[in-house]
Amino acid sequence: MSRHTARILAIGDELLLGRTVDTNSAFLARWCADRGLTVTGVQILGDDEATLVAAIKAAASASDLVLVTGGLGPTEDDRTRHALAGAMGAKLEASARAWNQIERYWGKLRPGPVPVSNKRQALMPVGARVLKNDRGTAPGMLGQVQGAWIACMPGVPHEMFAMAERLSTQLPRLIPGLRVPEVGEVHFAGLGESSAQDQLGALLSPGPVQVGITAHELGHITVRVVGSATAVRKRCAAVRNILKPYLLPEAGLAPSLVAVLTKRGQTITSAESCTCGAIAGMLGAVPGCSAVLQEALVAYHNEVKAGYLGVSAVDLKRHGAVSEQVVAQMARGALARSGASLALATSGIAGPDGGTRAKPVGTVWMAAALGSRVVTRHSHIRGDRSRVQQRAAASALLLGWQLLTGAV
Amino acid sequence: MSRHTARILAIGDELLLGRTVDTNSAFLARWCADRGLTVTGVQILGDDEATLVAAIKAAASASDLVLVTGGLGPTEDDRTRHALAGAMGAKLEASARAWNQIERYWGKLRPGPVPVSNKRQALMPVGARVLKNDRGTAPGMLGQVQGAWIACMPGVPHEMFAMAERLSTQLPRLIPGLRVPEVGEVHFAGLGESSAQDQLGALLSPGPVQVGITAHELGHITVRVVGSATAVRKRCAAVRNILKPYLLPEAGLAPSLVAVLTKRGQTITSAESCTCGAIAGMLGAVPGCSAVLQEALVAYHNEVKAGYLGVSAVDLKRHGAVSEQVVAQMARGALARSGASLALATSGIAGPDGGTRAKPVGTVWMAAALGSRVVTRHSHIRGDRSRVQQRAAASALLLGWQLLTGAV
Repeated sequence: MSRHTARILAIGDELLLGRTVDTNSAFLARWCADRGLTVTGVQILGDDEATLVAAIKAAASASDLVLVTGGLGPTEDDRTRHALAGAMGAKLEASARAWNQIERYWGKLRPGPVPVSNKRQALMPVGARVLKNDRGTAPGMLGQVQGAWIACMPGVPHEMFAMAERLSTQLPRLIPGLRVPEVGEVHFAGLGESSAQDQLGALLSPGPVQVGITAHELGHITVRVVGSATAVRKRCAAVRNILKPYLLPEAGLAPSLVAVLTKRGQTITSAESCTCGAIAGMLGAVPGCSAVLQEALVAYHNEVKAGYLGVSAVDLKRHGAVSEQVVAQMARGALARSGASLALATSGIAGPDGGTRAKPVGTVWMAAALGSRVVTRHSHIRGDRSRVQQRAAASALLLGWQLLTGAV
Repeated sequence: MSRHTARILAIGDELLLGRTVDTNSAFLARWCADRGLTVTGVQILGDDEATLVAAIKAAASASDLVLVTGGLGPTEDDRTRHALAGAMGAKLEASARAWNQIERYWGKLRPGPVPVSNKRQALMPVGARVLKNDRGTAPGMLGQVQGAWIACMPGVPHEMFAMAERLSTQLPRLIPGLRVPEVGEVHFAGLGESSAQDQLGALLSPGPVQVGITAHELGHITVRVVGSATAVRKRCAAVRNILKPYLLPEAGLAPSLVAVLTKRGQTITSAESCTCGAIAGMLGAVPGCSAVLQEALVAYHNEVKAGYLGVSAVDLKRHGAVSEQVVAQMARGALARSGASLALATSGIAGPDGGTRAKPVGTVWMAAALGSRVVTRHSHIRGDRSRVQQRAAASALLLGWQLLTGAV
């Protein structure tokens, strides 16, 4: 099986200045891996035409496909169209096809003619094809340089995603012999990355398959296997077998909770102090969560914890809001109040202030309540305020998942 | 004033596979801009030693400083130490200084000796200096290649941030003649990016200063001015003068709301349907928010809207949950229930399902209530579920900000 390679170029002065984080390249790197293309390099470049021409040529000489994002806007400093023409050695001409597409898109948005500045977006190198953009005014371009295909796409992520999706269907024709590999994923939680590596051992080594392990900020870990269908199936089954107690049915804790609760006809709620809505937000990000999430409460102040959740004022005073006693009562109170099947609660010190010697910043108590059972967990999370909040919410989801599935 | 340049190299197979988004390079690009260094390129490379040696040499020949992140882990496939040695033409040797640092860090974490595999992290090219890491086991390295400085730092962001901060103080010695420019920022909201560009006109053109404008996902826009102290002060004042009705006192809507409410001794609450805790989360991410945020409610289901917030069942039936009537009552109900000064409410269709012809996915109603005044706004947000939720929450914060400051 021959190796087909790709290079990715992200264009824009705003990227070189660090004003925008380039997330497009990671998306396109995954896109390539899933389609049998090995990415050999990613480059971020400014809007300088000569540099771009040289970079496109260099990338073209070393790969089958070059994916370029950015620099297709309507202003004078967007130079990707000119750079592609330069690399192709072709003239830049107004394309009727590109202009039609711009007019059609504009017409859906508002009445009146397309601004003159958008005319620049209809310029195309002679010999390049238009890549349709149904989410913005910038048409994409597909041209050839030294036998390699160069696909230029807009820098706006959701415009680019749709264009890349359509480009997928053309790949077999553009790169004959490209074999789309099978991709298998195993998701799990409740086991650390290094412990998982130890347990999986040689199953993480490449061989007939490529294998990668990724720990996600939202608390789960994914083993990703790429290769032929049979080899992927076999390797995934072996990985699943070893990780059995930790497996998730979906790609994440929140989606797994929503799926299982939906199946069982159960519901979930949260009572959050330090996480301040992050648990509800993670659940709410899952499509279809309305079947299982009816209400959630951010109970930041002690009076709210006492008033709405029935936390004992004595315990608040004796143990402090950041304590096992209080967080357990918050979870119980949330169950009673909402009638949900499962309640998650958090109380902690997210920082940067408020830490003490006994309870430093990053100290978090979590609780999950299901029926008459309440389980609690304590954690010390390092990092800034936002990291403490995110990790604490993820840990609370894990605790809830473990309680729901009988793992604790 | 001579131009000093930098290149950034991000190392790791996981980046080329798209399993991890490289956020380090954007951080370092801003770090450079703030310190008078022009970044001429960013490259993402895999863990292949020969490629790394060539990339370090090429970057060194074209710049004053090369910032390298990643590839400093304890496993065999981490090759950055070897690559720096190769580029320097130096031997790789065990450094007592590096090992001491690893032992000290490990000792703070847990009892017992440092694992043998970490010995690899104490290898340093002869002639390179150790860059201290106080947040992890991987020491950084500072070496010279063809007269350029090469700083190799860990890929773990919070370890790298701290190391880069310390490197800052060495810059004047490493690159004599480097002038740290003044950086000024003007934050505003409630005016679109293109309208702002139209109004600011030539004030966005470079001249004695560099100027950039960035629209943030969280709803505000920043004009950033870099140059000499006098020129920056002058340009920022001119920008502020034109944008006066839209200015924010802090770098974002949530921080601005928290700052002004704190100053006035007022409080805020939210009653969220489609945003599912995102408003509370944005406020909660601001240090010190506990002074102004006591409670917030996710009211996803209609019974919750009626039961806790007093939304009329008749209106829920007649107008639907996604309506001006309902969202206004949610905001009023949240004020009454919590005793807060300002309440924000949302109700919309985040998708991917649930849209109708009259109320397609992305339809969102927002309300803000302050005392007896309630203002509402309607929006149609394009994008996936998570984008609809984030933008709706940001729009609700904007509406609240405008109501609080008398702009609506």
